[in-house]
Amino acid sequence: MDAADVAEIFDKVDVPSCIALFRLVPQVQRTELFSYLSFDRQEELLDRLPDVVVTSLLNQMEPADRTQLFEDLDEVLRDKLIEKLTFKERAIAEKLLAYPEGSVGRLMSPEFIALREEMKATEALNHLRWYADGYTEAALHHLFVVDSSSKLLGHVSLASLVVADPSSALVKSLMDSPQPSLRATADEEEAAGFFRKYDTPYIPIVDDKDVLVGIVEAEAAFDVAEEEATEDIQQFGGQATLEDSYFQTSTVELIKKRAGWLALLFLGTMFTTNAMEHFEAVVKAASILVMFLPLIVSSGGNSGSQAASLMIRSLAVKEVSLRDWYRVLFREIAIGACLGLILGVLGYARAVIGGQGQLIGVVLACSLVGIVTFGAIIGSMLPLLLKALRLDPAVSSSPAIASVVDVVGIFIFFNIAIIIMHRYAGISF
Amino acid sequence: MDAADVAEIFDKVDVPSCIALFRLVPQVQRTELFSYLSFDRQEELLDRLPDVVVTSLLNQMEPADRTQLFEDLDEVLRDKLIEKLTFKERAIAEKLLAYPEGSVGRLMSPEFIALREEMKATEALNHLRWYADGYTEAALHHLFVVDSSSKLLGHVSLASLVVADPSSALVKSLMDSPQPSLRATADEEEAAGFFRKYDTPYIPIVDDKDVLVGIVEAEAAFDVAEEEATEDIQQFGGQATLEDSYFQTSTVELIKKRAGWLALLFLGTMFTTNAMEHFEAVVKAASILVMFLPLIVSSGGNSGSQAASLMIRSLAVKEVSLRDWYRVLFREIAIGACLGLILGVLGYARAVIGGQGQLIGVVLACSLVGIVTFGAIIGSMLPLLLKALRLDPAVSSSPAIASVVDVVGIFIFFNIAIIIMHRYAGISF
Repeated sequence: MDAADVAEIFDKVDVPSCIALFRLVPQVQRTELFSYLSFDRQEELLDRLPDVVVTSLLNQMEPADRTQLFEDLDEVLRDKLIEKLTFKERAIAEKLLAYPEGSVGRLMSPEFIALREEMKATEALNHLRWYADGYTEAALHHLFVVDSSSKLLGHVSLASLVVADPSSALVKSLMDSPQPSLRATADEEEAAGFFRKYDTPYIPIVDDKDVLVGIVEAEAAFDVAEEEATEDIQQFGGQATLEDSYFQTSTVELIKKRAGWLALLFLGTMFTTNAMEHFEAVVKAASILVMFLPLIVSSGGNSGSQAASLMIRSLAVKEVSLRDWYRVLFREIAIGACLGLILGVLGYARAVIGGQGQLIGVVLACSLVGIVTFGAIIGSMLPLLLKALRLDPAVSSSPAIASVVDVVGIFIFFNIAIIIMHRYAGISF
Repeated sequence: MDAADVAEIFDKVDVPSCIALFRLVPQVQRTELFSYLSFDRQEELLDRLPDVVVTSLLNQMEPADRTQLFEDLDEVLRDKLIEKLTFKERAIAEKLLAYPEGSVGRLMSPEFIALREEMKATEALNHLRWYADGYTEAALHHLFVVDSSSKLLGHVSLASLVVADPSSALVKSLMDSPQPSLRATADEEEAAGFFRKYDTPYIPIVDDKDVLVGIVEAEAAFDVAEEEATEDIQQFGGQATLEDSYFQTSTVELIKKRAGWLALLFLGTMFTTNAMEHFEAVVKAASILVMFLPLIVSSGGNSGSQAASLMIRSLAVKEVSLRDWYRVLFREIAIGACLGLILGVLGYARAVIGGQGQLIGVVLACSLVGIVTFGAIIGSMLPLLLKALRLDPAVSSSPAIASVVDVVGIFIFFNIAIIIMHRYAGISF
C-alpha cells in the first residue's frame, strides 16, 4: 500500500488508534506517512508522540511539506517545534516561513543542485553523486546552471547529462535556453497560472536579484489550483470559503461560514419589499401581474448567474482581463437582448395560452428583454468591478447577482406594465 | 522567449500573419511552438503550410499532444494526416486514438523505458544511453521495472541509478515498492484525482493485463483538473459548458450554450405562476404578504445555492461520496434550521420595525425557517441524486435550485400565512 492510502485510514480512525497504529509503522516510512496526514492528525501526533519521534519526523520532512504544517500551527507551538530542528533544517524552515503566506516561497522546495557552465558532463555527474544525499528526486533530475553570482542561467536535465558524451560535453552545450521563472514573493496563484501556460514539470524560483532560491513542482501547484477552484465555486454559491473539507468542518463552523452571507443577502433583498411597496397600487389593482412576478424577475437572476460564472472563471484562468471590459459589455448586451427575446416569446405564449391575453403577453415579453439584458450586464460587470477593486471576483455570487437583479427587476417589470397598460388599455394606477 | 509566450502572440495575430511568422521560426523550434498553439490555429496551419512542413511537424510532435490535436479534427482530415506519419509514429497515433475519448489513454505518453530487475545499474544506464533518442525528458527520468511478461513491478528513478554504486547495485535493490497505477481506459478525471491524492510527478498507466503501456505526467492532469473546475462552475452558473475560452467562443455559440438552460429554467419557474394562482384569494386580500414574497422565497434559493456548491465541489474532489447521503441530510437539516432561525429573527425585526406588525413578523419568521431548511435539503440532495443517476452533479445549478425552491417556497409561505392568520387573527381567505 502506498503511504497516501495508509494516511487515508489514519485520518478516519480515532486519535488513540491512530497513535497506536503509528507506532507499528516502520521507522523509514513514518515521515512520508506523516506528511500525507491531514493537519488535524499531524497536530495530534505532534502533541502525543514521544519527543524523540517528533524530532526525527520534523527533521526528515521535506521542507515544503514542513512549511505547510508550520504555517497552520499556532505561533507558540511552532517556535517550540522549530527548536527541535537541526541547525541546517532550522535555517531552511525559517527562511521559508519568512516568505509571506500564500506566496510561491511557501510552496517552494529550497533544495536544488547548481552547476557551472564550464563543467564537463562527467564533472557535473560526479558533483551530483557527491552531494546527492538528502535531495529529493525532483531536485536531482532538474539541475540548474548559475553564474558566479548565483544568477540563474538555465536548466540541465539529468537525462541530458547521462546521455551526453561523458568526457567532452560541457554543461553549457547541454543547457536549455533561458527559461521563465517566478519570484519567491509572487502570489501562489501565479504558480498555478504558470503551469496553465507552460508545459513543464517545475518552476525555477528566484529572489529579487534573480538568484535561484528553489523550485516549485507541478504537484504543489496542482493543489493550489484545486483550492482556488474550490474557493471560487463556494464563493459563487454565496458563502465564505471553508478551510477544510465538508466533513472536517464542524457544524458550528459551517453555520458561521454560511450565515454571514445569507444574512447580508437577506438585508440586500429587503429592498425588494421597498420596491414592491412602491408599486402597492399596481399590486392591489392588477393581481394578475403579481402572478408572473417571480417568473419574470428570476429569469434576470438566471441570466446574470450565467454571465457571472463565465467571467469569474475566465478571470481566474486569465482568459479575460480587466482591459477587456468594454468588449465584454457590448457582447453581453447583445447576448442578453437575444436571450431576453427568446424568453419573451415563451412568456408571450404562456400568457396567451394561459388565457391572460395579449396585453399581459406583451408586458411579459418586453419585461423579459429588459430584465434578462440587465442580468447579463450586471452578471458580467460585477466580477470585473470587484477585480478592479482588488477584491475576489467570485464574491459576485449567483445569489448576490439574483438579489440585485430582483430589486431592479421589480422596477423594470412594474414600470413596463404601467406604461403598456396605460398606452394600450387606458388603465392608470 | 519561451515557446508558450511566442504561441500567445501567434494566437492573437490574423491567420496570414501567423503563417508568415511561422515561416520565420527556426525549424528546430517549430514543433514545440506548434504544440502550444490553440486548436483553431493548428487547424489553419495544417491547412495552409506546405505538405513537407506539415509532415515533419506531425512526425515530431509528442504523441500526447498529437492525440489532443487529432481528437478534435474531423475524421476525414485526421485520416489524411495520419497517412503522413511514418510507420512507427502512425502505429503510436492509432494506438492512442483507439482509447475512448476522455480516457487516461488519450492523455498518456506511450514512451517509457523498461528495465529488468536483474540488471546492474551500469547496464541500465547503458541501455538508456543506447535507446534515449526520441524519448521525452520525463520518460528518461522515470524508468520502470517489468517482468518477462511486461507486467509492471516498480519504478526506478534515473537519479537513483546515477547515484548508486555503478558496478554492483542491482535495479531490484534501487526499485521503489510497487506503486499505484491507473488503467488506460479509466476516465481522465481519475488522473486528476490521482494527483490530488498522491504526491508524485507521474502515473504509470497499465492495460487490463497490468502491462505497462505509458505514463501520464502531472502537467497533463493539471489541464484536466482545470477543465473540470471550469465545467463545474459554468454548469453551476446555469448553462452548458463552453469548449473554448470566452472570447474564442462565437456570440452565436454563447447564445446557444445559454439559451437552452435559460429557457428550461423559465419553463420550470412557470410553476411559480401556477402556485401564485393557487393563492389568488390571499394575494388579493393580503397584498402585504406579496410585498415580502420575493424576499422570503429568494432566501430559500440562497440557502440551497450554498449547500449545492459545497456538495458539487466535495463530490468532484471526492471528499463526499454517495454513501454519505444520510449524514449530509441530517447535517443540512440542522444547519438549514439554524440559518432559517437567524434569518427569521431578521425578518421578524423587519416587519415590526417596518410597521407591518407582529403577526406578519411571525409569518415571516416561520416561513423563513421552513424555506431556508427546505433550500438546504434540496441544495444538498439534488447533486447527490444526480450523481446517483450517473449525471453530472453540477447540473443542479444555483438557478435550478432557486427555481425548485421558488415554487415550493410559495406554497410554504402562503400556507404558513393562512394558518397563522386564521389561528391568531381569525382571518380566513
